[in-house]
Amino acid sequence: MSSAVSPLAPTDVPAMPAIPGVKLATAAAGIRYQGRTDVLLAMMDKGTAVAGVFTQSKCSSAPVEWCRAKLKSGVARALVVNSGNANAFTGKTGRQATTLTASIAARAVACSPHEVFLASTGVIGEPLDATKFDGVLGTLAEQAAPDQWMDAAKAIMTTDTFAKVATATVKLGKAKVSINGMAKGAGMIAPDMATMLAFVFTDAPIAAGALQSLLRSGVEDTFNAVTIDGDTSTSDTLLAFATGAAAASGAPRISRASDPRLKAFAKAFRAVLGDLAEQVARDGEGARKLVEIIVDGATSKASARRIAMSVANSPLVKTAIAGEDANWGRVVMAVGKAGEPADRDRLSISFNGIRVARSGARDPSYDEAEVSAAMKHPKIQIKIGLGLGKGRDRVLTCDLTKEYVAINGDYRS
Amino acid sequence: MSSAVSPLAPTDVPAMPAIPGVKLATAAAGIRYQGRTDVLLAMMDKGTAVAGVFTQSKCSSAPVEWCRAKLKSGVARALVVNSGNANAFTGKTGRQATTLTASIAARAVACSPHEVFLASTGVIGEPLDATKFDGVLGTLAEQAAPDQWMDAAKAIMTTDTFAKVATATVKLGKAKVSINGMAKGAGMIAPDMATMLAFVFTDAPIAAGALQSLLRSGVEDTFNAVTIDGDTSTSDTLLAFATGAAAASGAPRISRASDPRLKAFAKAFRAVLGDLAEQVARDGEGARKLVEIIVDGATSKASARRIAMSVANSPLVKTAIAGEDANWGRVVMAVGKAGEPADRDRLSISFNGIRVARSGARDPSYDEAEVSAAMKHPKIQIKIGLGLGKGRDRVLTCDLTKEYVAINGDYRS
Repeated sequence: MSSAVSPLAPTDVPAMPAIPGVKLATAAAGIRYQGRTDVLLAMMDKGTAVAGVFTQSKCSSAPVEWCRAKLKSGVARALVVNSGNANAFTGKTGRQATTLTASIAARAVACSPHEVFLASTGVIGEPLDATKFDGVLGTLAEQAAPDQWMDAAKAIMTTDTFAKVATATVKLGKAKVSINGMAKGAGMIAPDMATMLAFVFTDAPIAAGALQSLLRSGVEDTFNAVTIDGDTSTSDTLLAFATGAAAASGAPRISRASDPRLKAFAKAFRAVLGDLAEQVARDGEGARKLVEIIVDGATSKASARRIAMSVANSPLVKTAIAGEDANWGRVVMAVGKAGEPADRDRLSISFNGIRVARSGARDPSYDEAEVSAAMKHPKIQIKIGLGLGKGRDRVLTCDLTKEYVAINGDYRS
Repeated sequence: MSSAVSPLAPTDVPAMPAIPGVKLATAAAGIRYQGRTDVLLAMMDKGTAVAGVFTQSKCSSAPVEWCRAKLKSGVARALVVNSGNANAFTGKTGRQATTLTASIAARAVACSPHEVFLASTGVIGEPLDATKFDGVLGTLAEQAAPDQWMDAAKAIMTTDTFAKVATATVKLGKAKVSINGMAKGAGMIAPDMATMLAFVFTDAPIAAGALQSLLRSGVEDTFNAVTIDGDTSTSDTLLAFATGAAAASGAPRISRASDPRLKAFAKAFRAVLGDLAEQVARDGEGARKLVEIIVDGATSKASARRIAMSVANSPLVKTAIAGEDANWGRVVMAVGKAGEPADRDRLSISFNGIRVARSGARDPSYDEAEVSAAMKHPKIQIKIGLGLGKGRDRVLTCDLTKEYVAINGDYRS
């Protein structure tokens, strides 16, 4: 595993405010790693609404199945996350492990197991020994405090090189409410509903149904618009918790996502998701370049998304960027293989604002030296104009380096 | 560019017989490379039938467009192939280059430009200077000889580390006919109709329509079942030429692919395609392992193909194999993300005949040491049982190594 921090890590880490109604604690339960924390317990006050989106994998993990089933009630009191073992493809043992974990947590927090949400990340296919949570969760419930956000984000890391947090404070009615989020994920990232693991907490009094709507629309252009390697995890989980504690300071209770009073909150919520999603791309395994792909002029937004993803997942485009080579021929290739409407003779492509191709051929003003200099930047924007319609979309990814191969060639052994 | 020969290169290179009606010659036209041949001229006798399948890319190259248009007549007299420049995404200049090349070749061979077929491979987006063929093709037409197969296969290479040829001799009626094939391709390989460039020649008297049927069905489980990196070329071209010269020694003239006399020939033809396709996988850029993925128990063959391709294109599966790690959790992930019917609790997975997972969990008899030893083989077979139906398919690929990144990080610059 790589240990150096990604050169693309954000330089400013925000101060994370307390979220009234949320307390956190972490511990080292020795699930897989030595000398680091690997369990997070988040405790939420009574009345907390919960929403979630999950991987579309046909082989989803036991905790994903657990959360999907428990989400129906819309209420949550605890979240238990472990790193080091994904409890995925573990059969009946895996289901037993989720049941046992939830009952240990319920005892520790004094709630029903049905109000406990679970997420696991790490190796697939190894049985998870849930008895390791016994004792640990009880202690964590006693220690839990409102200011443990960075510790929490660290405890859920696997091949991540930095902890990912984001925060926003916004008015809801006349009250101030806060949104805190954390995420982990650096490889096996091509979220089809959410990235591997991300958790968002707010004190806004938002009903579960409205929160679910916000989450579903919020992931579309944030987590679902990020890919590291085109590989979708069995464990993708994004949960949002709204404690409603801000109702005490006058925040209105929101029951519908379409409520006009929610506008500023919805924007801030999406910004938190977008911030976390970008941090996932910035921590792509082995990444040295953050790559933003913008497609416009497509026949629809969905078509623009598929073309952008085809470019973002192309190993040849990604290795070219790693080599600081503005190899737009490979961008043409990736547009062409997407299977979406495209007219070679209308295509234009630019790298970091420098147009290299237009009307289906090299731009007449193409200057290799100028483009080569632009490719040295740590952030590369590839803009693709199709000239067919008004469809536009944006996807984030990173380059493909030898370090990605090294990290993943000896992760498990 | 890597220069060492792939460790997966076939150890036996077949002696390629002459194909009556076909003559070949190669030259160094200085299109891009120094000190090597980069042009191939193949001349076919009058009456040669031609068939072709091409990339499904929406941004196909100028030579692909040229061939598609000329294929309608079904007759061919010459094939000109160059390496070093793909003449793709070159706009009007690209179309002019194909017209000029065909007219130079037609003059050299004394045929119509409409009987000339073209293929180009190499960098995308650079204008191809077709005037370089002037003079060269005239000399080649004079020098062309029936025994230049290895030289021909070498002249069309780009990042290939070995020349790819295959041959078969089979009875058609009472006459012996031969089939010779050559291919190039090592990266940007996820053929959607054919690999980058492959050419098959026979002296069998097969009409163009029948040849086209043979080719179309022949690629399905050969070239279309190979992927190196999931990236589909703008230039994929597979052409088959049947000179009909064997009619003189009594071979029956075949006008329909369903003709029962064609059975042995069709089998041999498919074997030649399969042999070439496997060689493409064996020369995958940076490859150290040939990987065969067999999916059975799927709901259909098409479903099995999509699942096998999802596994074959997964960077995480491919890097694990490069690391000699039987990381079947990543195989589960890739099955799960394929979007095809799959039941986690029925899934079984084996590596080189050793079952590691069954019924949705680790096999009880799993022995890490035994599996690790098996992973050291240069050929890895991953067998995935879905337990749902009778759909079965097989796909070839290779591992993903640091060398792939190195080769593609500085190919163009």
